[in-house]
Amino acid sequence: MAKDMTLLWGSGSPPCWRIQIMLEEKQLQGYNHKLLSFEKMEHKSQEVLDINPRGQLPAFKCGNHILNESYAACFFLENQYKSQGNKLIPDSPDAQALMYQRMFEVLTFHQKIVEIVTYNFRVPEEERHDSAVQRNREALTAELKLWEGYLNKTDCCLAGKEFTLADVVFFPSVAFLFRLGLSSESHPVLAKYYNSLKDRASIKATWPPHWQSTPGPDMMKTI
Amino acid sequence: MAKDMTLLWGSGSPPCWRIQIMLEEKQLQGYNHKLLSFEKMEHKSQEVLDINPRGQLPAFKCGNHILNESYAACFFLENQYKSQGNKLIPDSPDAQALMYQRMFEVLTFHQKIVEIVTYNFRVPEEERHDSAVQRNREALTAELKLWEGYLNKTDCCLAGKEFTLADVVFFPSVAFLFRLGLSSESHPVLAKYYNSLKDRASIKATWPPHWQSTPGPDMMKTI
Repeated sequence: MAKDMTLLWGSGSPPCWRIQIMLEEKQLQGYNHKLLSFEKMEHKSQEVLDINPRGQLPAFKCGNHILNESYAACFFLENQYKSQGNKLIPDSPDAQALMYQRMFEVLTFHQKIVEIVTYNFRVPEEERHDSAVQRNREALTAELKLWEGYLNKTDCCLAGKEFTLADVVFFPSVAFLFRLGLSSESHPVLAKYYNSLKDRASIKATWPPHWQSTPGPDMMKTI
Repeated sequence: MAKDMTLLWGSGSPPCWRIQIMLEEKQLQGYNHKLLSFEKMEHKSQEVLDINPRGQLPAFKCGNHILNESYAACFFLENQYKSQGNKLIPDSPDAQALMYQRMFEVLTFHQKIVEIVTYNFRVPEEERHDSAVQRNREALTAELKLWEGYLNKTDCCLAGKEFTLADVVFFPSVAFLFRLGLSSESHPVLAKYYNSLKDRASIKATWPPHWQSTPGPDMMKTI
């Protein structure tokens, strides 16, 4: 079945990485994939637009189904391959409720990172303000404090002992932060989470290739 | 079981309305609820903060489970009450894939509305630019075109003939747009969708109370 899947992706993009981790977790290796370059604007190519009219990566086809939204792909794959690979939605109502709640809070967490990282791309020069940059950084600082608290209350993973969909969507953004120089000393609980999962098979197998060869900018060092 | 649920909500907030529709669809009437005022800043009250540390509405408790994120509440309720009320995740892989994909695209659709509506609240006066306002309006115009195309290809609902979770999360944002003066002539397919669902029992029963008594501003008239 994995032979019937095609993923167009960009290295280091958390939404792309989520789908890659998911495919590993569900033992769906062997899918077709193609690494494209954001710098060369390949995400606006016809090849991508044919799958994803938004001209964004990931562009993911699973048989005839188009699942470009990373959360959509995760839910669909978990539902269609329930008994294959790792089960990523827990049965217990407690863990399930916590998983869903955290999973959707991740969207806010990720958005706050994106607002800082993409500021100069998104905002034309004449509209940029140091006060906005400062506010975005303060918003991320407050957000990280919240997650340090959340993780302090759980065992290992976001919804308890088991690795779930919440971790599939959260880990890539956490790794991105550390890649951008986030301080482990100032964020010890997030650092512990990061270190406990970075060698998990599904994550190691899909680690962004260009992260291995080039260092990231120190954008998050003083957050 | 509904007696064990508490929803703190604000009138006209699409995320609050999603949970209200969901509770009706799953025949979970009789839950505790309290209407709070955004204008009076009641979403920052201790009562809300005790459930939702972000100080946002909805604040939703289902037994001991906290599900403030509207998507989290929808998924949890659907999963816990599978055989009660209407089934909102279709079995067919085709409809399911389409439902998930659209459901998560709704987040982008809704975000583009929010960026326009909250611009003056979010952005301090000295950082506001007409060019940014214009860009936000163009982004929503392009987004609406995409959804006109999507809806043109389906029967009645977002993922086909059946009302699904995708409609639970989409409808409140569509209704919000028409409340703000969106032109039916310029958006005939969205208007058809809106008109075909506005009298659905779950939607009618939860219609934002202040919308019935006061007209909305004409903010979206020229989109």
